[in-house]
Amino acid sequence: MTSDMLAQNARWPKFDDKIFAAAKRASDAINLYGKEKVIDSTLGALYDDDGNIVAFDSVYKCLENMDRSLIASYAPIEGTIEFQKNVIDVCFGKYKPQAYIRAVATPGGTGAVRHGIWSFTGEDDPVICHDWYWPSYELICDEFKRNFVTYELFDEKYKFNIKAFEKTFRKELRKKDRLLAIFNTPANNPTGYSLSDDEWDRVLEIVLDEAKNKNKKITLLLDVAYMEYAGSGEQKKFFTKFQNLPDNIFILIAFSMSKAYTAYGMRSGAAIGLSSNEDIVDDFYYSLSHANRANWSNGNHSAMEILTKLNEDKDMEKSYLEDLNKYRAMLEGRARAFIESSKEVGLEILPYFGGFFISIPAENSEKISSLLEEKNIFIIANKNGLRFAVCAVSKDKCRKTPRIIKEVMDSIKK
Amino acid sequence: MTSDMLAQNARWPKFDDKIFAAAKRASDAINLYGKEKVIDSTLGALYDDDGNIVAFDSVYKCLENMDRSLIASYAPIEGTIEFQKNVIDVCFGKYKPQAYIRAVATPGGTGAVRHGIWSFTGEDDPVICHDWYWPSYELICDEFKRNFVTYELFDEKYKFNIKAFEKTFRKELRKKDRLLAIFNTPANNPTGYSLSDDEWDRVLEIVLDEAKNKNKKITLLLDVAYMEYAGSGEQKKFFTKFQNLPDNIFILIAFSMSKAYTAYGMRSGAAIGLSSNEDIVDDFYYSLSHANRANWSNGNHSAMEILTKLNEDKDMEKSYLEDLNKYRAMLEGRARAFIESSKEVGLEILPYFGGFFISIPAENSEKISSLLEEKNIFIIANKNGLRFAVCAVSKDKCRKTPRIIKEVMDSIKK
Repeated sequence: MTSDMLAQNARWPKFDDKIFAAAKRASDAINLYGKEKVIDSTLGALYDDDGNIVAFDSVYKCLENMDRSLIASYAPIEGTIEFQKNVIDVCFGKYKPQAYIRAVATPGGTGAVRHGIWSFTGEDDPVICHDWYWPSYELICDEFKRNFVTYELFDEKYKFNIKAFEKTFRKELRKKDRLLAIFNTPANNPTGYSLSDDEWDRVLEIVLDEAKNKNKKITLLLDVAYMEYAGSGEQKKFFTKFQNLPDNIFILIAFSMSKAYTAYGMRSGAAIGLSSNEDIVDDFYYSLSHANRANWSNGNHSAMEILTKLNEDKDMEKSYLEDLNKYRAMLEGRARAFIESSKEVGLEILPYFGGFFISIPAENSEKISSLLEEKNIFIIANKNGLRFAVCAVSKDKCRKTPRIIKEVMDSIKK
Repeated sequence: MTSDMLAQNARWPKFDDKIFAAAKRASDAINLYGKEKVIDSTLGALYDDDGNIVAFDSVYKCLENMDRSLIASYAPIEGTIEFQKNVIDVCFGKYKPQAYIRAVATPGGTGAVRHGIWSFTGEDDPVICHDWYWPSYELICDEFKRNFVTYELFDEKYKFNIKAFEKTFRKELRKKDRLLAIFNTPANNPTGYSLSDDEWDRVLEIVLDEAKNKNKKITLLLDVAYMEYAGSGEQKKFFTKFQNLPDNIFILIAFSMSKAYTAYGMRSGAAIGLSSNEDIVDDFYYSLSHANRANWSNGNHSAMEILTKLNEDKDMEKSYLEDLNKYRAMLEGRARAFIESSKEVGLEILPYFGGFFISIPAENSEKISSLLEEKNIFIIANKNGLRFAVCAVSKDKCRKTPRIIKEVMDSIKK
């Protein structure tokens, strides 16, 4: 930042996209050495074994058959009525909680996370999150001057660290009346962890206890971007816990079409709000409509229509579920290969229940990552370890990689 | 607003979309009485004479021929390099100023206006605008607690009211060091007015005078959403005035694909920044990249590709320009019919130079609008008058409507 032309709140250093830069180096290596010789685990999208991005036939056939006039026309600010209805249906599956529920369309899950942080916290209010997290949560808090605080995701047994959560949650609520807690589950990015139903019970016990003080306004923001790759429906059972909650606990779900519909580039998602109090959900709906209008007016109309059609038309739904199941199975196969192989070579990895990534805890993750790059293996280094993208690497390569990672890690220890 | 669950900054009353509600009543009337009997001037999109939304063949053929893998994949945060380059080219045409220029992709023009207000003003800083304006400017200022101040767009001769601008501009800069001035030109929404080159000279004289004080940070935000319907290229000549400006004047152009490409529902546009100082434009670029990441991550990839292809491929460019010229001529024909007919019946209208709307100054605009609705003529009432959508009404109906408006206005006066 070299000048004072920008307002104080908008002065940011050069944005350094580590992932994009690593992806570029991987792609250069592929051009130089050939696809077979390179393992590119940098990308956060689903790729088939030939290295091509997966685009569900059901989704893109629906787009290709769509009237130009629909694609061209504005969607309503809040999203079409049909999208609002269907996205709730799709999100909860069989496990829709008994609560008042409304949805507002957003550009991807990002828009919903942004709205949640913007609308349910004020400046300096705490936004708490587990310490393996998608970096944008922190960046959004920086942008809007919220206080981003992390706690350890895992205890020593690699279970959800309920004590760490409790300590941070209670401590921040002693300082402030308003708190938002982000949970990226099921199938956490970057670890693949999912909170179990029992773990959710314990979280809610603590949240309910603090909520006895009616001055406390608590929002749980659930980022479920990878949910459809964490099971075939039963992973949604925990949603039914979000009913009969007191008025001062609000549940906000950030829903994304990016992964579940292989529609990353179309920018469509929703903020889904739940409360036991109808008025509060209405307040949420009108507040987020205002925020939609103020930030991007309205969303991608064709993407809303795709979700609607693929849920309402039985044949199209069937094709969509076939696509989803096929690629979820592909992902599971790759993850199994990586996990088994890790076990064989003694590589410690974090518990994986689904999603696009598996994480390897490591100090010196930057060092390891750059040594791996010398072997043409491109893996993103996080603060606490390495993020391996099973979404982007063939099963064969998933089987081969753990041994090489282990060797590099051992070589550093010596 | 019934509860205090939302943070203070996000409490908004039920969002009442007047235009959407009027459009619904018009569509009900069409179903009841038939298309021929109803004049629906509520919509802000281009419709052909049969009442169908226009979707340029060149644009949608490009989409239909696009690789699924491109549509599916994420675009970079700032937009593709090709989009950044081509959108600058398309925006300025032959009249690219000698300045440092960079572009960041945004969801429609709204995203760019939002970024401009967010990044170049702080809380309570003045955002000044002419008093015929798109209501979202004010709404964005409300959302982000900026101080929205208007001045009269017109003097008594229906020319740009340079004195009103000067008074407000200088007055607000006496109170604050940082100011953003919005100009929605060429082809203002809702009046169709364009500032002439001479009027721009006088604006810049005043701006340059205030900018002698280097503590003053002045941003001119130009919303050019309707520019392509305000001439066949020469209307862009005023852009060349934005060169050799001092460092404390920043020019930000809100570019939209919505109207120029009949791509409203795809949500694509750009914030284009200009400065004589390369560092300041770089600061702008990284700040807005941060804001992109924090608000919506990235934009609609396919829309960026459409703009790129339609500018780089000579044949596709030719088809696109044919589409654009054809529909601009249609719009001009309708506007001419409306203006001539207004003259004949003595209906006072505001000067129109292009764009989607013509405005009729009127007190009691709500009353007139509801009386017109009884005659199945649906026209949006603004604070200062009526907004007639030449974009949405056939030439025949454009010719017929002024007489009926005049009669209704006269009947109220009696």
